[in-house]
Amino acid sequence: MYIVYSAVGAGVLALLYSFWKTAWISRQDAGGERMQRIGKYIADGAMAFLKAEYKVLSIFVVAVAILLGVTANQESSHWLVAVSFVVGAICSALAGFLGMRVATKANYRTTNAARKGLAPALEIAFAGGSVMGMGVVGLGVIGLGSLFLGYEMLFGFGGEENTTKVLNVLSGFSLGASSIALFARVGGGIYTKAADVGADLVGKVEAGIPEDHPLNPATIADNVGDNVGDVAGMGADLFESYVGSILGSMVLGAVFVSELAGQDQFNGLSLVLLPLALAAIGIVVSIIGSFFVRVGEKGNPQVALNMGEIVAAVLMLIGAWFAIDTLLPSEWTATGILDGTPRTFTAIGVFWATIAGLVAGVAVGFVTEHYTGTGKKPVLNIVKQSSTGAATNIIAGLGTGMQSTAIPVLIIAASIIVAYYFAGLYGIAIAALGMLANTGIQLAVDAYGPISDNAGGIAEMSEQPPEVRERTDKLDAVGNTTAAIGKGFAIASAALTALALFSAFMSQAGITSINVAKPDVMAGLFVGSMLPFLFSALAMGAVGRAAMDMINEVRRQFHEIPELKAALAVMQKYEDPHDMKGKDREIFDAADGKAEYAKCVEISTKAAIREMVLPGLLAIVAPVIVGFIFGPESLGGLLAGVTAAGVLMAIFQSNAGGAWDNAKKMFEGGVEINGKIYKKGSDPHKAAVVGDTVGDPLKDTSGPSINILIKLMSVVALVIAPLIKI
Amino acid sequence: MYIVYSAVGAGVLALLYSFWKTAWISRQDAGGERMQRIGKYIADGAMAFLKAEYKVLSIFVVAVAILLGVTANQESSHWLVAVSFVVGAICSALAGFLGMRVATKANYRTTNAARKGLAPALEIAFAGGSVMGMGVVGLGVIGLGSLFLGYEMLFGFGGEENTTKVLNVLSGFSLGASSIALFARVGGGIYTKAADVGADLVGKVEAGIPEDHPLNPATIADNVGDNVGDVAGMGADLFESYVGSILGSMVLGAVFVSELAGQDQFNGLSLVLLPLALAAIGIVVSIIGSFFVRVGEKGNPQVALNMGEIVAAVLMLIGAWFAIDTLLPSEWTATGILDGTPRTFTAIGVFWATIAGLVAGVAVGFVTEHYTGTGKKPVLNIVKQSSTGAATNIIAGLGTGMQSTAIPVLIIAASIIVAYYFAGLYGIAIAALGMLANTGIQLAVDAYGPISDNAGGIAEMSEQPPEVRERTDKLDAVGNTTAAIGKGFAIASAALTALALFSAFMSQAGITSINVAKPDVMAGLFVGSMLPFLFSALAMGAVGRAAMDMINEVRRQFHEIPELKAALAVMQKYEDPHDMKGKDREIFDAADGKAEYAKCVEISTKAAIREMVLPGLLAIVAPVIVGFIFGPESLGGLLAGVTAAGVLMAIFQSNAGGAWDNAKKMFEGGVEINGKIYKKGSDPHKAAVVGDTVGDPLKDTSGPSINILIKLMSVVALVIAPLIKI
Repeated sequence: MYIVYSAVGAGVLALLYSFWKTAWISRQDAGGERMQRIGKYIADGAMAFLKAEYKVLSIFVVAVAILLGVTANQESSHWLVAVSFVVGAICSALAGFLGMRVATKANYRTTNAARKGLAPALEIAFAGGSVMGMGVVGLGVIGLGSLFLGYEMLFGFGGEENTTKVLNVLSGFSLGASSIALFARVGGGIYTKAADVGADLVGKVEAGIPEDHPLNPATIADNVGDNVGDVAGMGADLFESYVGSILGSMVLGAVFVSELAGQDQFNGLSLVLLPLALAAIGIVVSIIGSFFVRVGEKGNPQVALNMGEIVAAVLMLIGAWFAIDTLLPSEWTATGILDGTPRTFTAIGVFWATIAGLVAGVAVGFVTEHYTGTGKKPVLNIVKQSSTGAATNIIAGLGTGMQSTAIPVLIIAASIIVAYYFAGLYGIAIAALGMLANTGIQLAVDAYGPISDNAGGIAEMSEQPPEVRERTDKLDAVGNTTAAIGKGFAIASAALTALALFSAFMSQAGITSINVAKPDVMAGLFVGSMLPFLFSALAMGAVGRAAMDMINEVRRQFHEIPELKAALAVMQKYEDPHDMKGKDREIFDAADGKAEYAKCVEISTKAAIREMVLPGLLAIVAPVIVGFIFGPESLGGLLAGVTAAGVLMAIFQSNAGGAWDNAKKMFEGGVEINGKIYKKGSDPHKAAVVGDTVGDPLKDTSGPSINILIKLMSVVALVIAPLIKI
Repeated sequence: MYIVYSAVGAGVLALLYSFWKTAWISRQDAGGERMQRIGKYIADGAMAFLKAEYKVLSIFVVAVAILLGVTANQESSHWLVAVSFVVGAICSALAGFLGMRVATKANYRTTNAARKGLAPALEIAFAGGSVMGMGVVGLGVIGLGSLFLGYEMLFGFGGEENTTKVLNVLSGFSLGASSIALFARVGGGIYTKAADVGADLVGKVEAGIPEDHPLNPATIADNVGDNVGDVAGMGADLFESYVGSILGSMVLGAVFVSELAGQDQFNGLSLVLLPLALAAIGIVVSIIGSFFVRVGEKGNPQVALNMGEIVAAVLMLIGAWFAIDTLLPSEWTATGILDGTPRTFTAIGVFWATIAGLVAGVAVGFVTEHYTGTGKKPVLNIVKQSSTGAATNIIAGLGTGMQSTAIPVLIIAASIIVAYYFAGLYGIAIAALGMLANTGIQLAVDAYGPISDNAGGIAEMSEQPPEVRERTDKLDAVGNTTAAIGKGFAIASAALTALALFSAFMSQAGITSINVAKPDVMAGLFVGSMLPFLFSALAMGAVGRAAMDMINEVRRQFHEIPELKAALAVMQKYEDPHDMKGKDREIFDAADGKAEYAKCVEISTKAAIREMVLPGLLAIVAPVIVGFIFGPESLGGLLAGVTAAGVLMAIFQSNAGGAWDNAKKMFEGGVEINGKIYKKGSDPHKAAVVGDTVGDPLKDTSGPSINILIKLMSVVALVIAPLIKI
């Protein structure tokens, strides 16, 4: 059991690292009064949202925990699953909370540091991201590891029956993490897009004020949105993926306990423990990697981030090799869930499966980068199609998104076959874990993005000189490739993790076949395939309604607050508000702080909380209904459908949104179409803005939520498996 | 065998009816010289496209036939499948050809008749549609029936082995029909949308000339497009569905031959023959129904069309009841493909399965009508969201399309379970056939739409008085509900037919399980789910490229043809070109006939032919590759994926497109949003036009093609089944 202790130890190390970095950030210069005031608005808004969200979620958590505790009162299940569930939910919420608190501290300090130069700004932004990253992996490993330890003590160490029971109870942890993640992603996604669309449509388009301008009442809500959507939402998301892939591998490893007993040093548990060991190694190498993220005054931040990731990845490979070689017997024979006859497994095979996962993740990432990257052919095509208007821009974007599914799906399909070939279903699970073991540093790089973005917004609102905004923009622009690869990892690992959980469900439900030729299973497949469509529709509708609320509120303030009205009228006269002088400047300054930011924050908060409930419940209720009425095989069909269609819809929506976004960004620097140069404000640029707005809810609300949806439904199935066992 | 003879007889009757109607249409007054000239342009353009298309397809047909003949040289398969394939392809092409020839005769005669009144115009337009409808069912039944008869004679009557062989050889007919249908749908869809988008974007938006105006060089191509896309394309589409559902039922009926022998009057073949009998009854009741489509001078054309359909549907139900009661034993016991133990089947069960299919089709139709109908809540929501711009209009449309998948999928899933409950897999096939047996009259109603649409275009181009256009618009507007129900039938029957063909494939390939828990099957499921996305992307990209070609050509003509340039300049001065007088009128008239319509027709033709090849081949090659490399079970996974994801994508795209279209149409009459009235030309209307343009390729190119895609892939699998049998 020393492995579990070391895993928990690594988790504690990660938390210590993250506290240390938090303390360091708090010590940095927070800048002038105005900057601090704006930073405080954002931090307060973000906390207000989290509070409101957690209040609703705590009701949900208590209700589900009671339900789990009560229904579990049968020999096949255990009430402790409710405990795991609550702990998982709390850890997930805590990870989101810690990450967001530090992000809302780091953002304005990054702005302030950007006044001095690029290097100090990068340092603070990345430190903020790494607190999030380490917090997520630390809480994940501590939670899983200590619960596992506790349950092993309770039910008895080793043995197939005990282990199955332990892992079934432990699966509640993953259920807690996934439920919170889905609500956080959906709620955060609705919040951020409602504020964004509202701020843009009334502020930028109708009133003509620049982005992130303090006159716009929705601008604080917009910046709060970046935090609750991109930081807290993403943190909960990756916490869920991380925990799901570890748990899925553990459950599939438990299939071999009896057959391995006596062959390994852990009483047959080596395959169950390996995932925790890999996670522990991932934490250590992430911390090491984070020290390589340094940039000189003239250096390139992109290179710095890449360096950190590459160092961590190489170390991870070496570490994985040693862990697999040390912990697993070099060869064993066993009958897997799907194998009729025993087959031989090897330690090296497990290692190759890990590699297959990593290669697939990187490959999907590069394809993502190709389809969404600035200057690449698909985005250039969207830019070109913008010259004939919004309609052709939209058609091109939809086409790009749909086409971008082809190669990733072939890669995922190949990785499934290869991982299975080398190490059975366990191989598929471990391939997913291989991609996610380095979540610590990957998430640090991901979360660094919204912090820099926020820093830019604060620079604008506190009217910093242009070079400060330029520096934060530069920070924000780098890391696109790393972010694309991160997205590739997220999608590929979601597919593989869902499959692993799905197989884990079969093992726990005692079925060995999901025959889609059977009508009830086929019906399940149809309904499952439909859920990502319905879910996306609900999310999009929610964003639309919430944005409408926001638009009406902003319009009201522009009408009813006299100072705002006057300042807006004055502003129309100037191209650049910085040029204002004399009486105009006075009127303009009089409006400062008159916009009722809190009202907008409240509207976004209320709308997001209200709208997240239905899609969230859909994901949890659907597998329960199908499972109890039609049985485990139909439920298997449902899971197969939601996984396949979900992966497709997630890739389609994320990439279409990403491509539209970058097509719009290309106009900001000016682009050439058929020999003419088009800039910001030209008709093709306006068409590209329409595309970007359409893409926003796709790529930031529904798209990423689907990754969680498919795993959550598999986890729900896994948890109820003992109850519907045939 | 008297049933097969009667079926062929009914087919001959249908063809006679269609020749009779054709002759009647030819005798109608063709109108003035100008009208006839325009009619001839359209007819020539349509024929030119068909010729070019059939030239390419004949190479494809010959190549595949040789391939089928050569590879079939093994004991499990037979070279006659190549013969069936060629006959199926020819019948499908012939159905498209006959339908389009009469449609291009009926269109300008309808315009001419509309000068007199609504009733005579309806009569001609509906007669044109019914020629198409009867041609399709006639050729289908004659082709299938006579080949079946011939093969039975060759291989020997009855007996399980013979029947399986006969039906495997016969499946080539369905393959021929499906391949031609896919190419025709895709090619026709690309043609019509390229011409439409090209004509609209340059003609209407840039040059400001009204729709269907003779000055627009692309206007003839646009009207040709309606014929090749909506008439020939739809004809081939329904021919394929019709044939596929008959064949699928026959193959699944053959499973019971041994067990039924001695129990029925056909040496065990009763379940194989029933589909042909139902088809024959469908023809007779369709002809009867068509006589009920009559309208008085003051009457409502909608009521007339409904009357025809309802009479036919009621008679069909009665006929089906008698056929099932007469032909089938009232009860028999047999082991189906999926059943481990024998179960009892009943004739009444087969009847209930038919009803289940009909109810599902009608229900899906009503849901379609709800989500896409003018004045219904979802379309009103899109109208409302247009007030904040194109982006919110697009988001609302996408959301509506996605949401509209939910209930239809639940209905389809329920109908699968119910049909299976009553009559096993055979029940699923017969449910699909129940929806399609009345194809004769359904297609007549469907094809009547584009004929009326064309008639309106000709009225505009030949400068008829406004009341003529009003009458043709009225004709075009009715039948929306019937068309929506037709769409519901198309989607639901495609899903069930695909399942039937899919089960038929399993039976022929000798597998009883498609276990998606197996990694290679799961990989197949992923790849299969991806194909509708890739296919849609290819179709959309093709429309984009072809439209660009068209736009450039129209711009060139406006620049290089002096008479056009002058007339355009003159026209800008007038709100309504009819007001032109004096010198302006002279300049304007001088431009008449100067636009090079043929060039635009040629561009659309070339682009459509060029672009249809890749998506078409994709559909045929994918199952072959997967089947031969990974075996029948993986291929089953592929089929399950393409069917589930395909049904979703088809519903999503068709309904989103339909909803956008009607949202735009609502502005033409003026709509109220938040207390303000918006009309044609207002900003919200422009936003709605963007949505409509985005929806065009979705609803007219990729959406309907996917229905064929999923069946074609199942048929390909069915045909190669003996070769990959394990």
